[in-house]
Amino acid sequence: MSLSVAPDGTEYPFPTPEEDKQEFEILKSLSEEERKKGRKIVVVQGMGFVGSVMAAVVADAEDKNGEPVYFVHGNDLVSRRSYWKIPVINSGKPPVNADDPEIPEIFPRCVNKKKTLRATWHPKVFTFADIVVVDIQLDAQKPELGQAEEGYCDLNAFKEGMRTIGRSIKPECLILIETTVPPGTSEKIVKPVIGEEFTKRGIDVEKFPPLIAHSYERVMPGSKYVSSIRNYWRTFSGINEKAAYLAEEFLTNVLDTEHFPICRLGHTNASEMAKVLENSYRATNIALMFEWAKLAENIGVNLFDVIKSIKVREGTHDNMLRPSLGVGGYCLTKDPVLANWAAEALFGLENKLPMAVSAVNINDLMPMHTIEIIEEACPSLQDKRIAILGVSYLQNVADTRHSPTKLLWEHLMEKDAIISVHDPLVEVWPELGYMRIEKDLSKTLFDAEIVVFAVGHKPYKALAPEDVVQMCGRKPLIVDCSNFLTDEKIMKYIELGCNVIGVGKGHIKQLKKKIKKAL
Amino acid sequence: MSLSVAPDGTEYPFPTPEEDKQEFEILKSLSEEERKKGRKIVVVQGMGFVGSVMAAVVADAEDKNGEPVYFVHGNDLVSRRSYWKIPVINSGKPPVNADDPEIPEIFPRCVNKKKTLRATWHPKVFTFADIVVVDIQLDAQKPELGQAEEGYCDLNAFKEGMRTIGRSIKPECLILIETTVPPGTSEKIVKPVIGEEFTKRGIDVEKFPPLIAHSYERVMPGSKYVSSIRNYWRTFSGINEKAAYLAEEFLTNVLDTEHFPICRLGHTNASEMAKVLENSYRATNIALMFEWAKLAENIGVNLFDVIKSIKVREGTHDNMLRPSLGVGGYCLTKDPVLANWAAEALFGLENKLPMAVSAVNINDLMPMHTIEIIEEACPSLQDKRIAILGVSYLQNVADTRHSPTKLLWEHLMEKDAIISVHDPLVEVWPELGYMRIEKDLSKTLFDAEIVVFAVGHKPYKALAPEDVVQMCGRKPLIVDCSNFLTDEKIMKYIELGCNVIGVGKGHIKQLKKKIKKAL
Repeated sequence: MSLSVAPDGTEYPFPTPEEDKQEFEILKSLSEEERKKGRKIVVVQGMGFVGSVMAAVVADAEDKNGEPVYFVHGNDLVSRRSYWKIPVINSGKPPVNADDPEIPEIFPRCVNKKKTLRATWHPKVFTFADIVVVDIQLDAQKPELGQAEEGYCDLNAFKEGMRTIGRSIKPECLILIETTVPPGTSEKIVKPVIGEEFTKRGIDVEKFPPLIAHSYERVMPGSKYVSSIRNYWRTFSGINEKAAYLAEEFLTNVLDTEHFPICRLGHTNASEMAKVLENSYRATNIALMFEWAKLAENIGVNLFDVIKSIKVREGTHDNMLRPSLGVGGYCLTKDPVLANWAAEALFGLENKLPMAVSAVNINDLMPMHTIEIIEEACPSLQDKRIAILGVSYLQNVADTRHSPTKLLWEHLMEKDAIISVHDPLVEVWPELGYMRIEKDLSKTLFDAEIVVFAVGHKPYKALAPEDVVQMCGRKPLIVDCSNFLTDEKIMKYIELGCNVIGVGKGHIKQLKKKIKKAL
Repeated sequence: MSLSVAPDGTEYPFPTPEEDKQEFEILKSLSEEERKKGRKIVVVQGMGFVGSVMAAVVADAEDKNGEPVYFVHGNDLVSRRSYWKIPVINSGKPPVNADDPEIPEIFPRCVNKKKTLRATWHPKVFTFADIVVVDIQLDAQKPELGQAEEGYCDLNAFKEGMRTIGRSIKPECLILIETTVPPGTSEKIVKPVIGEEFTKRGIDVEKFPPLIAHSYERVMPGSKYVSSIRNYWRTFSGINEKAAYLAEEFLTNVLDTEHFPICRLGHTNASEMAKVLENSYRATNIALMFEWAKLAENIGVNLFDVIKSIKVREGTHDNMLRPSLGVGGYCLTKDPVLANWAAEALFGLENKLPMAVSAVNINDLMPMHTIEIIEEACPSLQDKRIAILGVSYLQNVADTRHSPTKLLWEHLMEKDAIISVHDPLVEVWPELGYMRIEKDLSKTLFDAEIVVFAVGHKPYKALAPEDVVQMCGRKPLIVDCSNFLTDEKIMKYIELGCNVIGVGKGHIKQLKKKIKKAL
């Protein structure tokens, strides 16, 4: 257990007490040297999806003369899941996979060339920080899918992270929280924890009120991963004037705030709320479309055409979303739950967020509808060979967190179907015991009786019906989970003798009639 | 009872049987003459908010040579509520009030100058039509506010309107339905009714299938009333190819389809669904914001600032809406109900639209929240003098249909408050027994203890706090229902000794502290 395993299988033993000691000395002398160069010292806490790339973006920031503004220590825990990131980053390699060509460039540039980024496991690194950027994980728990109203947030690990910072930082160090937190967290959780640690250390909190700011990221893993941090709008707030001032200075140095202006809100509650509201808005609009998808299926309408026609009307309905297999990822599935939980747990309110939370429930259970329409077309799934195309939660991305395919897979397994799964981007599926994912489509499709287009990866959208049917070696039932097939392709499948069904695609019956008529 | 009263009080006696006969002869010779000029004959059924202006827009349409394309008969019923519109239109005056300067121009232009528009009560006018445009009213009924799931649509009057058309039209006449109808109406209601009438008249419906098309309007009464018909995008569909073709030809002749392309959908169910989905989207997004408004109020956040900051992020959240006193008007309060009702009544589905319908309930009852926050600040409303600013359902518009101020008024009345009501645009309030609305603000505000900014009319937004306080002659409680007051104004009111509260404006407490500190 005293080692950490990277996704490529490499094992990294945990540091020894001796290495611990050495590391502190390295951090000390490095920080002092860097400060002499006129650079401020930033510690990014959490080397995950957001933190590692944020650390690189900060380390990459330059002033008008092309000089680095900050030296960055990337920090993570000595744990089986996280520790490997430290040596990987320090070797100049990114700890994340992405389509974005900037990712494999920015890490070696900052680590080896500019020498402005170094990762460390040592918790005393905060001693040297002028600015701490918090990017540690904070999850919402749901007792079961469909019980989002009972969802809660366990803040213990997060509080412990804050305590680690409070134990070491200089009193005038800025703590900038980027983690998506329940509204109220900066003021009601972070501030008292830091204050307690300051008091224990004999720091007068009246004279040195903790400098806490909040600014949420809007990272999209994908082809514009780095850009989604650096070249994107930010909302921020400070727990006091000085914290807000320092946060603004930092964000202005690091991000392209000229083209993507930052926006200050008057209270940390407000910017914390903004983030979860953004995602609640999205989650709700997906859930809304799902009920209309079911109506569309029943009354012979192609919902996607309807949405497209509405959007011709510019401006007023551009944010309409669409139904699909389901909603995954790390934000939309939990952010409404964080806010709903905070209303009661942090503010003692009865008045909560029923719509946003019910949207999470609807979205979490959405994959069951795909099973329903499959069973309508094919009543017994026992021993049926089903090929599922797509494992990630989003098209053209390898991220499998909270992927709706998982629920589909689990429930089809319960029905004793024989399932094969393919994804062009996902190597292993961590949420399903690190299952290896097939990359040879013809193997996945071989002998399949049902083919589920679950995710809109580019190669799936490019697939010719003839090739699919040929790879299956039979005429499978084709299931389109979110308008991945054009009407032309659907008609081709039907002509080839396949049955086709789809979420929100009630017009397929009419296409069938059209073909019958033509024949 | 045999007369109709216009809003200005003028009385119009119903036509005599003799006038009826004469009218038919006029319609006949006029239609024949116009057809000789190469013009097609259009009958617009329903001279309400949409139909009357649509009739004018059609009558105003010109070909490349500047020649009118259509002659238009505007048709409405001989009823107390509607008949007055016929003589009013025929005198060259608009039957609607609006900010739009085009409105008082287009009616005299078409009626007197171009002579392409004439209104008639005669039900046999359809005999002469090449195209019938249906703009008659179709309401949803709710047993009570908050019971939208029990809402239903009484189609009898609408069916009777269709029957009137079917009794007279030529078999090759296009019926273009613009009324917002429950999805399924064109196919399941209009088609069989017209078919029955055709059969009664000995017309072979196999040879002459009824030509029914659907294209919904997106009229916004206000400063761009005419433009919202002519220069706006349209979705349409036909019950068969020929109907779709004729509808496209008509819409292209009448609307600016070059700059605002029209979009055809494959089925009348689809375009009927598009309209109610558009409005369900809006209704749902308002309802969502309302639950966040209540949270914002409780945790010290200005929701409107939060929304503004989120929208800095371009493209993804531009359609976020906002909470207010409530949602009124003719569309958002009923369209989700029409769709929900149709799912069961026209398609026999159990699977309905819970989110959209619950949004209607939330929105319908939203005014109760304003009363709640007033009562929190001022526990007993008995004999309290309350001034309500704004009666219409929308800012800068005189339309009072389903105005949320009505519910506010009724419930404050129940609490024995003494209420005065003002609106700069509304003359009388039809939904409250044609009550005359005060236009002198100082009279409304005199001695008021509570001032409710209910609607965002321009003059209200321009009001200086000093003037309001002076007109009241005391320091009233100020209630801001939807961000009509800037922070500067709120602070001014507080400095003047007023208390201020607002929907979604939890930050007012902080403003109060700020002022206390400054004093």
